[in-house]
Amino acid sequence: MTSSGTAPAYRRLSVDQRRTQLIAAALGLFAQHRPEDVSLDGVAAEAGVSRPLVYRYFPGGKQQLYEAALRSAADELEQCFHEPRTGPLTLRLRRALDRYLAFVDEHDAGFTALLRGGSVVSTSRTDAIVDEVRRVAAEQILLHLDLTGAADVAPDGAQEDGRHAERAGARLRLTVRTWITAVEAASLIWLDEGKQPPLGELRDWLVDVFVAQLTTTAARDEHTARTVEHALRLEQPDGPVGDLARRALPVADAAARLLGGES
Amino acid sequence: MTSSGTAPAYRRLSVDQRRTQLIAAALGLFAQHRPEDVSLDGVAAEAGVSRPLVYRYFPGGKQQLYEAALRSAADELEQCFHEPRTGPLTLRLRRALDRYLAFVDEHDAGFTALLRGGSVVSTSRTDAIVDEVRRVAAEQILLHLDLTGAADVAPDGAQEDGRHAERAGARLRLTVRTWITAVEAASLIWLDEGKQPPLGELRDWLVDVFVAQLTTTAARDEHTARTVEHALRLEQPDGPVGDLARRALPVADAAARLLGGES
Repeated sequence: MTSSGTAPAYRRLSVDQRRTQLIAAALGLFAQHRPEDVSLDGVAAEAGVSRPLVYRYFPGGKQQLYEAALRSAADELEQCFHEPRTGPLTLRLRRALDRYLAFVDEHDAGFTALLRGGSVVSTSRTDAIVDEVRRVAAEQILLHLDLTGAADVAPDGAQEDGRHAERAGARLRLTVRTWITAVEAASLIWLDEGKQPPLGELRDWLVDVFVAQLTTTAARDEHTARTVEHALRLEQPDGPVGDLARRALPVADAAARLLGGES
Repeated sequence: MTSSGTAPAYRRLSVDQRRTQLIAAALGLFAQHRPEDVSLDGVAAEAGVSRPLVYRYFPGGKQQLYEAALRSAADELEQCFHEPRTGPLTLRLRRALDRYLAFVDEHDAGFTALLRGGSVVSTSRTDAIVDEVRRVAAEQILLHLDLTGAADVAPDGAQEDGRHAERAGARLRLTVRTWITAVEAASLIWLDEGKQPPLGELRDWLVDVFVAQLTTTAARDEHTARTVEHALRLEQPDGPVGDLARRALPVADAAARLLGGES
């Protein structure tokens, strides 16, 4: 069960490469089994190395390996929401969701295990890692929604990110943060329901929900209304917003007429 | 620190009453402290009883008490979504949210601790209790949304509930389940942001988000579209849907015009 046929040559990997290899092996196992069913022996076998070698890299044992795997997954998920700040917002969002949902699709049960914890290995430290993914995702979206020009004064990206969340109104922030958890929840439900509906439909629906939530908040909040107004100018007629507006308009119109449009 | 001044008389309580009293004391502490900072001594002091008495009722110690407290909170949260099936759906939803958010407001940090786990006492068993709250809430809402008359054939309430989730289309189910987690997430964010905006605004926003998500799904899904059509007939002109439709219509209209209404 040590280095055999298909396993990479035992001594050729650098420390970083070996670490990456062990984390990848762990992620693979966490993707197929519940955390409590993953053992260091299993990780060693998966990576084609000896158990002592796994311990040398992760002396904290399974807990440390779990946190490293979670950290690695979190880094990847955080990257999903980085997008150049050009073009229609819905297309940027669509690309971010494509990356995020591809990760969900690939890691499957592992995504559930990693994000839900709910196991012997879940601690307030692992929860903090998961919260950080949500925070970074919300921060990125608020950065893209900061269309009043203020963001352009400080082009040094990541370091300035924290300010956008502060500058954004409380209601806009609540909307974006709630949507992020909706994406996470919908991903978990999608896995739970045997990956139905198809991934592309789920993505389009999540973009629609974002637009709908933003519009809903804009109906009551001046700051969000201005943001939506700016965002609208970047959209294309045949893009997601135009599409949704055309399809939702008759419903909203019927509701308004049925319930007395003038008040 | 045993039975003193304000504490209820030591021997007068029945087994059930004593159990309820201890759970209430535990809930009170979990509401103010992180689970890891709650001790059996603290619960005993809070209830004005001796530590051995707490152990007699909860021989499994803190973990058992935590689960009993969680179970009790879960029962209360599940009750929030029970509503008579009459009147506009948005008003039923508003009443359910009033109860749910009152619980959140009252239990504060305890709500966060109970729902997030993320501590030494979080296990797959406690996660299952929290999941059950979400399942029951979604089930109740789907019951109310089952407006095609099928639900009336089997009026024996709770026992038949499981069928509504099955009968509801996958997209409608996804919408409702996602909204439930959005309510939970928004509640946690609301606590995190120092209870801003005011509770009534949060509630109205959550009702709006529900209507918006349902409309969004209806725009792509026939089953949901029929459900919305039925639901609309129950609404009142001056109710939440009429209000939202009037406020959102100009935005949707502007979007449709700006992006080319005709396609």
